[in-house]
Amino acid sequence: MTDSASVSQTGAPAHSDSPEWVLSLSCPDGAGIVHAVSGALVDVEASITESQQFGSPDSRRFFLRLQFRTAAPEEVIREALAPVVRRLGADIELHPAVRRQRVLILVSKAGHCLNTLLFQQRGGQLPIEVVGVVGNHDDLAPMAEFYGVPFHHIPVTPETKADAEATLLDLVRDLHVELVVLARYMQILSPELCEVMRGRVINIHHSFLPSFKGAKPYHQAHDRGVKIIGATAHYVTSDLDEGPIIEQDVERVTHADSARDFVHMGQEIEASVLARAVKWHTQGRVLLDGHRTVVFR
Amino acid sequence: MTDSASVSQTGAPAHSDSPEWVLSLSCPDGAGIVHAVSGALVDVEASITESQQFGSPDSRRFFLRLQFRTAAPEEVIREALAPVVRRLGADIELHPAVRRQRVLILVSKAGHCLNTLLFQQRGGQLPIEVVGVVGNHDDLAPMAEFYGVPFHHIPVTPETKADAEATLLDLVRDLHVELVVLARYMQILSPELCEVMRGRVINIHHSFLPSFKGAKPYHQAHDRGVKIIGATAHYVTSDLDEGPIIEQDVERVTHADSARDFVHMGQEIEASVLARAVKWHTQGRVLLDGHRTVVFR
Amino acid sequence: MTDSASVSQTGAPAHSDSPEWVLSLSCPDGAGIVHAVSGALVDVEASITESQQFGSPDSRRFFLRLQFRTAAPEEVIREALAPVVRRLGADIELHPAVRRQRVLILVSKAGHCLNTLLFQQRGGQLPIEVVGVVGNHDDLAPMAEFYGVPFHHIPVTPETKADAEATLLDLVRDLHVELVVLARYMQILSPELCEVMRGRVINIHHSFLPSFKGAKPYHQAHDRGVKIIGATAHYVTSDLDEGPIIEQDVERVTHADSARDFVHMGQEIEASVLARAVKWHTQGRVLLDGHRTVVFR
Amino acid sequence: MTDSASVSQTGAPAHSDSPEWVLSLSCPDGAGIVHAVSGALVDVEASITESQQFGSPDSRRFFLRLQFRTAAPEEVIREALAPVVRRLGADIELHPAVRRQRVLILVSKAGHCLNTLLFQQRGGQLPIEVVGVVGNHDDLAPMAEFYGVPFHHIPVTPETKADAEATLLDLVRDLHVELVVLARYMQILSPELCEVMRGRVINIHHSFLPSFKGAKPYHQAHDRGVKIIGATAHYVTSDLDEGPIIEQDVERVTHADSARDFVHMGQEIEASVLARAVKWHTQGRVLLDGHRTVVFR
Repeated sequence: MTDSASVSQTGAPAHSDSPEWVLSLSCPDGAGIVHAVSGALVDVEASITESQQFGSPDSRRFFLRLQFRTAAPEEVIREALAPVVRRLGADIELHPAVRRQRVLILVSKAGHCLNTLLFQQRGGQLPIEVVGVVGNHDDLAPMAEFYGVPFHHIPVTPETKADAEATLLDLVRDLHVELVVLARYMQILSPELCEVMRGRVINIHHSFLPSFKGAKPYHQAHDRGVKIIGATAHYVTSDLDEGPIIEQDVERVTHADSARDFVHMGQEIEASVLARAVKWHTQGRVLLDGHRTVVFR
Repeated sequence: MTDSASVSQTGAPAHSDSPEWVLSLSCPDGAGIVHAVSGALVDVEASITESQQFGSPDSRRFFLRLQFRTAAPEEVIREALAPVVRRLGADIELHPAVRRQRVLILVSKAGHCLNTLLFQQRGGQLPIEVVGVVGNHDDLAPMAEFYGVPFHHIPVTPETKADAEATLLDLVRDLHVELVVLARYMQILSPELCEVMRGRVINIHHSFLPSFKGAKPYHQAHDRGVKIIGATAHYVTSDLDEGPIIEQDVERVTHADSARDFVHMGQEIEASVLARAVKWHTQGRVLLDGHRTVVFR
Repeated sequence: MTDSASVSQTGAPAHSDSPEWVLSLSCPDGAGIVHAVSGALVDVEASITESQQFGSPDSRRFFLRLQFRTAAPEEVIREALAPVVRRLGADIELHPAVRRQRVLILVSKAGHCLNTLLFQQRGGQLPIEVVGVVGNHDDLAPMAEFYGVPFHHIPVTPETKADAEATLLDLVRDLHVELVVLARYMQILSPELCEVMRGRVINIHHSFLPSFKGAKPYHQAHDRGVKIIGATAHYVTSDLDEGPIIEQDVERVTHADSARDFVHMGQEIEASVLARAVKWHTQGRVLLDGHRTVVFR
Repeated sequence: MTDSASVSQTGAPAHSDSPEWVLSLSCPDGAGIVHAVSGALVDVEASITESQQFGSPDSRRFFLRLQFRTAAPEEVIREALAPVVRRLGADIELHPAVRRQRVLILVSKAGHCLNTLLFQQRGGQLPIEVVGVVGNHDDLAPMAEFYGVPFHHIPVTPETKADAEATLLDLVRDLHVELVVLARYMQILSPELCEVMRGRVINIHHSFLPSFKGAKPYHQAHDRGVKIIGATAHYVTSDLDEGPIIEQDVERVTHADSARDFVHMGQEIEASVLARAVKWHTQGRVLLDGHRTVVFR
């Protein structure tokens, strides 16, 4: 999986034991983008190990994800990319490939999503470091504890809502949180937190959006008589249940399944869809294209 | 698959070469329904070959589908059932199992659903007799002709709409049509036809309802950035795109698929979902439970 | 969901708050089976709440699962059924519907299946009581402990194999185990245990059987270049990987996924397939038809 | 979707109305491949519109598919690529993107695959030109005729087998066939034809390979009691049912489905899987990696 964007002057490829990096880039579409970016990587003797691109005909933006190895330190890579980025008017994210993002998980009482995220984290399938679990109830404190993650009980009532939001915001800052995951957290985030963490809050909605927005989606689905239910992981925006969709999945149901059965059957899909969305986000595979996403799987 | 509801006085089972019947029944839920119905079948020495039941906790109605063999003629079977049906306040449908329903297919220009229905009919997979194809355009006349089915070109314009509807209604009556299938027919049926054929008109909607009702659902889906598209077969009611759902299916899409790709990819799901809905309907497997369906697969 | 097989002499239906029972029955196919069985239930004033039947044309056996409510005590039900069962030459299982079977889970080092089973048990989705976890390694002791289940470390080496098998057999007897679940237990059970627990040991095999029997199935699958991987839950017989299949599921893979990716991706399917198989088995929904199963979902 | 590998000397991007080309390339993995190839494209002022790459860790080969626009004629493009190709030791295929490959379809009696291929060809979904249909029976002659494709009846009996094979080979040569599709052709191809058309014969096998090789796979599957059936499209090699897999798909079955039901249900999967395999092959998306395939979807 090693293809070198560069041939060093001696003709030797960059060493395969050099650190690996992930570069995600988006910019207005146009000529010469890949050439320009790979040119910058030539300058730091990088070997490209994975590459994907997409030009959106609707938004006329270009999206690129590159994984590469180089012995050059981060500042040198950024320096090499800087003029290109400036010229293209590009947004970029550059991260070490093996870095585990600092994640805060918000929960209420249902533990299926939390269980999956923590289990997969420990098994090394999910490249994240869960730095804390916040619950507006304390039911899931033992589970967090079992996985060695600090649990913060922040109850939310109409009276304490403002305080709770402030506490949560402090926590995000103090723990240097890079991604907030709403793992069936039954509260709406404050506009301030949404703003601070824009594009870095992922929610799991227990329906196949845009069907059945709002509360009790499984009951809505049951009432409508659908034959397939689903779950949707999306970025949180101020527009409830309208954020950019990252991943969806579905399962068959029949007339014999009650709304309560839908709830049970849905848990597996929810956990699975959310875990994939978190994984892809932290690997730099999800790029925002307006109110849609580009997902380089 | 032979279980006899009856043991004849000689103890001999009903002959396995007797004609097979399908009985679909729904009535208010209560005690003794299966016992009562199977008792009536005992009287005509019927052997049950397949049976399914469902009591809807929401509507408090009971649904039953029985397939059985008996040498008794239809009138005798109906006579035996009559007192039970009356007492239960039941709606029933009784048909020979091998009967092929008389179906009228309505189309516009897209032929993928028509192609699948006609091909499966000829191969014996779809137990229907297509007695005619109606098109508001004549593009699909050759395909109907290839399969030996009369094609009726009934153009619909604002001026001719009333006439077209009357012609269509006449056709339904003259051909003794038992089921109307809208195979991507891009016109709305007249309220009169809807009324006459209530519960016997099946439409394929090219979205995963209730998402993306109305026109251009694939474009809506593309604009929303969903990761899965679908199709829905439902009974037509006066409430557009709100009729009881019979069957749905889905397919994965990515950011790289255009709305036009969605259209192409969706054709296969549409044809497949519609064919299944038509099959199950004509086999008496779909029963109406208010605005939902019970599907005994 | 209440249909009464009986109308009591007063015409009153059996009370809906009576205990619920599950009856699974198989016998040589023939006439009058449902009639005979429902007749016996009439005698104990039972209300049928769910019923499924299947006559296997290959084995010529008939399979029936009935769920019913009655105020009659177990002995009275069994007494009513006895003459019918004798006459039909039937095998039956009769259990209270709400009973949780006593399950022993066997594991090695991988915890994904155990995690799902224990989590779903605690959430009430899986109607089982896990009476113990046995590991030939002790890696999963903390997880068992977290869920309050005793963990038994029974190492297996060539020298200790006979002792280990004896210990395991003792455990099965002492704990009155009704179902043994091999949740990625990497050892072969002793013929004696297989015999004692015949039809009551479920294994999860990490391939889409009958493809890729034996060890390292994901590596075999990767080497063959398949585009879909799967997992299979089956009853354990002396014929390795050949036992009757209960449930299977699959997931798409691509050329870019390594054998190690297959392993990771497969974990979710394995856990999910095994949990469903265990659930259906303990609900009396899985009946043996020779080397195949009838699954009344 | 326009990214230019080149910036012309005037800074203007290559015109978006230039012809589009597809380049598929495989070679021993190493440093500088993408750089070298894109460099050659720079020389012909090409704009890359789509690009995918994969380095196989097992075979240590590198695979690349590029779609690009350029005003340069084919000879000029080939000339620019020649030194790079030579240096890399690469196998390449270069085709106009809109070209429709010349396809010969071989059938017996079952028409479901042929029907799908011809329908999708006519609708423009399948970028092929079916230059002929060959049947060892003549049942499908009318269908070929309906779609305006010449039908060749080449019966195969033990006595005529050698002649039939010679006739078929002549046909492949005379019609300049680029791809042979076995659409449920129940005969084995001659070694000579296999050799001449190596990597250009696609078969649909009606099982989820490697399960159930050989004849009557649905009956084998039914006998084994599987819960999911499938179909596999693969390149034909001299090693029957062992050729590189291009695509697979599956469908759920139950104990109540007979082997005959499997056959019916499987038809839809077979047609769908084969159509996708043919589409991807003709778009240059399928590259051979030993006995496996790389599929750039």
